[in-house]
Amino acid sequence: MEILITAAAARDLGEALTAMEDITPVLLEDDGTLSRGGTPVTEDQIAPRASWISLDLLFSPHAGAYFKMVLASSSLEWIQSSMAGFDNPVFGRIAEKGIRLSTSDAQAVAISEYVMASVLADFQGVDLRRANQRDSEWRLTGFREISGTTWMIVGIGAIGNEVAKRARAFGVHVIGVKRSDTPTEADETIRPAAMKDRLGECDVVVFTSPLNQETRHMGNADFFAAMKQGATFVNIGRGGLVDEPALLAALDRDHLGGAILDVFETEPLPKESPFWTHPKVRATPHSSPISDGTEVRRRAQFLRNLRAFADGNPVGNEVSAETVLAS
Amino acid sequence: MEILITAAAARDLGEALTAMEDITPVLLEDDGTLSRGGTPVTEDQIAPRASWISLDLLFSPHAGAYFKMVLASSSLEWIQSSMAGFDNPVFGRIAEKGIRLSTSDAQAVAISEYVMASVLADFQGVDLRRANQRDSEWRLTGFREISGTTWMIVGIGAIGNEVAKRARAFGVHVIGVKRSDTPTEADETIRPAAMKDRLGECDVVVFTSPLNQETRHMGNADFFAAMKQGATFVNIGRGGLVDEPALLAALDRDHLGGAILDVFETEPLPKESPFWTHPKVRATPHSSPISDGTEVRRRAQFLRNLRAFADGNPVGNEVSAETVLAS
Repeated sequence: MEILITAAAARDLGEALTAMEDITPVLLEDDGTLSRGGTPVTEDQIAPRASWISLDLLFSPHAGAYFKMVLASSSLEWIQSSMAGFDNPVFGRIAEKGIRLSTSDAQAVAISEYVMASVLADFQGVDLRRANQRDSEWRLTGFREISGTTWMIVGIGAIGNEVAKRARAFGVHVIGVKRSDTPTEADETIRPAAMKDRLGECDVVVFTSPLNQETRHMGNADFFAAMKQGATFVNIGRGGLVDEPALLAALDRDHLGGAILDVFETEPLPKESPFWTHPKVRATPHSSPISDGTEVRRRAQFLRNLRAFADGNPVGNEVSAETVLAS
Repeated sequence: MEILITAAAARDLGEALTAMEDITPVLLEDDGTLSRGGTPVTEDQIAPRASWISLDLLFSPHAGAYFKMVLASSSLEWIQSSMAGFDNPVFGRIAEKGIRLSTSDAQAVAISEYVMASVLADFQGVDLRRANQRDSEWRLTGFREISGTTWMIVGIGAIGNEVAKRARAFGVHVIGVKRSDTPTEADETIRPAAMKDRLGECDVVVFTSPLNQETRHMGNADFFAAMKQGATFVNIGRGGLVDEPALLAALDRDHLGGAILDVFETEPLPKESPFWTHPKVRATPHSSPISDGTEVRRRAQFLRNLRAFADGNPVGNEVSAETVLAS
């Protein structure tokens, strides 16, 4: 069976891939050409049934050509993505073609560490500590514990569950918000309809939802007004979940204590965005998933799912065409 | 029964104290005088059986006079301290007089949050993230997860156990080091004699030990040489646990990746100390216990132990005179 992956991905997978004797990789080389078994091939000479959108592909100048090839292919049956989200319109077109899609939860651990690090840095005034150190100043600064606080995790799934596990070990009470009945790691799980009534209890609110027609601009003026005075807002889901001017207004009238933002409506965040310089905002460039561990788990997940696909077994993290098309 | 506390502490305790009808507080007023029931009294007119070294007392100009009074008292039987440590020589003199001492573990939660925040900030390059934000630069920076790392907690007690609980929720393997057989929250607990053999496995080493003749300068050149290349060293115990020039040398020859130091041999840390400006050091002014929650737990602990003492019941966190005198 042929699979389509980048040459960089094949190098990363190494022996784990070559050991799969029933798999023949067609490589998208660094220069944008195709090869199979060391020989250049053209698009009409290949018939890959599976493909991997490895992370390097997303930053490659040949990403556009890759997706064109995918959408023109008559052989492709299944694609493994490197991302948790599937709101990019290309996934809708992939779903329309009947190609199955598996998302990735390999980044869940990394993102949960980012959330914990950022909230703790916020609560502990890590920046002020560092400034005092730079001044060689022995200046006592007290801090606020997260122990005993209440957090809401909106759209609790693989990422939210990892956040919940860690926060609960600190003595945080975690309220998960979820549409379905799937069990979670939260202390309690509520439906989206009940969210607004509980927002006033929460010291930290974390958005981890997928972006779709229901969730777009879920973080609007009403939402922020319902949040507790001085609370911290965290978005590691998608920029489109938030009405950004409404968030800025809530920060500026001192209703919210701070915002931790790794995603934005426009990415890269434009130079002139007030989020860069806002004293209450910790802004990062969609980097919460970018860790050493994420790459290791991503590779393992692709190989595991590829094995299952090749053997005709159920494939992990598959998302239905219906769900993709609703986003 | 009379107890000796500061006026500030009495204000903090409020009704919880006044509700204890069998307790008569003698107050050390803000101006250094004594009062009882609103009337000034002199030292020879009082006979307190218990006292609380509340946190405000440690920063008070009357701390010296307070300890003089304690050491001259013939009525004092029990003292509640606000600190975990008892290496200050005054505790030796208190123990010699036969006054019982309870230490405090109210700061354990705060210190554990400090440790987690600091290690995560170190692993995630939080300072670089903030610098990129200040420059309005969308610059992806990957980070190292703590998931899958191994930590050693040397002298694992109340504080170390709180660190262990939190670290384990992140998928950290925790090795506790302890002289006694008391159960711990670590994955495995070893004796001090076995410590050196395991140091090479550890990505993070945390000192939480009390300072005594055995532990003084435990962190010496041999110790740091036995640590893993690139590992992070954390000291929230006592400055005297570490041979500071040896630590600096290990950082400078790039054997250690970083150091997180909240305690120092000389405190306040002198202006000329290289720890202030060292690029691999996060230095804070013995502030890891200073949180909102610590104060609440400290008060609750004093009231609980005072009740037990007044009722003739076993008092929590009591440390034997023998242990105090060995430090």
